[in-house]
Amino acid sequence: MQVKVIPPALERLIRNLQRFPGVGEKTATRYALYILRGEEAVALELSGAIAELHKRISYCSACYAFSETDPCPVCADSRRNHETVCVVEGPGDMLAMEASGAYRGVYHVLQGVLSPQEGIGPDELRIRELVERIEKSPVSEVVIATSSTAAGEATCAYIISRIQALGERLTPSKLPVITRLACGIPMGMDVKYADAITLKRAMEHRFNCGKP
Amino acid sequence: MQVKVIPPALERLIRNLQRFPGVGEKTATRYALYILRGEEAVALELSGAIAELHKRISYCSACYAFSETDPCPVCADSRRNHETVCVVEGPGDMLAMEASGAYRGVYHVLQGVLSPQEGIGPDELRIRELVERIEKSPVSEVVIATSSTAAGEATCAYIISRIQALGERLTPSKLPVITRLACGIPMGMDVKYADAITLKRAMEHRFNCGKP
Repeated sequence: MQVKVIPPALERLIRNLQRFPGVGEKTATRYALYILRGEEAVALELSGAIAELHKRISYCSACYAFSETDPCPVCADSRRNHETVCVVEGPGDMLAMEASGAYRGVYHVLQGVLSPQEGIGPDELRIRELVERIEKSPVSEVVIATSSTAAGEATCAYIISRIQALGERLTPSKLPVITRLACGIPMGMDVKYADAITLKRAMEHRFNCGKP
Repeated sequence: MQVKVIPPALERLIRNLQRFPGVGEKTATRYALYILRGEEAVALELSGAIAELHKRISYCSACYAFSETDPCPVCADSRRNHETVCVVEGPGDMLAMEASGAYRGVYHVLQGVLSPQEGIGPDELRIRELVERIEKSPVSEVVIATSSTAAGEATCAYIISRIQALGERLTPSKLPVITRLACGIPMGMDVKYADAITLKRAMEHRFNCGKP
């Protein structure tokens, strides 16, 4: 009975919108009704933007970020430090890092994290490309900025081992320094709500902020 | 700096997705990246579903529900009680009512509620059409199922006054009974968390559930 009252074209859209991450039937219905109640021109602009996406955007062949140009604007920017490579899981992490304004080097976008359950091994990520990049061009520092989740940590550990294995082929002076984003209490967080592992790491990496 | 690293085609889609109700830049970016990382065929199916929506769906000329056919499947169903009309604010309310399976009459979809601030007066809703419908075809009961919000209650009161004004033209026996959805404690809600107005109404409308 319920299905019958939903026009098939609306149902098709709801089914499609439900694929979005974290979107269930209720939210998808809300979005679909929003589109339906709005003007057709607005819907067609959205439809066009979605259809264009894959046609316009592909990967940067240097850092594997999504880009309309190759190399991407970051890799093409001579003012950035090309010897520092920040390894991120995905494009969202790269955007967040750029928004922070704290980084002036270039990136390497893995396009995922190691996840044996989902069948994502080293070959599914851009790890081989990272190693080749270090081997072929001068890289003085690799900042590993994967998430501090189990999968992110495992990916970090694997990347470290792969870069260290390069030591057999590269002269030690050519091996990059490997660093990792600090782990600690996030801004605005109450210490009493921090989990034990975060607190332990924050304590281990405590820094001197007193007078010299 | 930040803008430069987002490909323009991705930015266009993010801007479009931000129009969705309750969706800010972060969620829109998440959805857009989801689409970009997925297969192009999936994106094209979504794009097509959005483009088709307005072309396929318009209003039922009897109840003003969104429908691909006119009359809509509910209005065309002879097994439903066409003398009972449930007045709802929008298509989402109609879907929720159908999902409950508690109603076997037909609907009248206002496509909004009275909202002077937003410039939505009686002429912007399908209230005149409701009154004409009652005047022209036999309607024995009008169930007003607008929300129990200030705007929903105001809309309800206005509809009641308009139907009662019909009494001047219709013979009293032809005037429909006007009913309203019960107001009370929702299922699963703890009484101590119910607000005062809900509790007051639940007490006023208490019903006899003891032995006859």
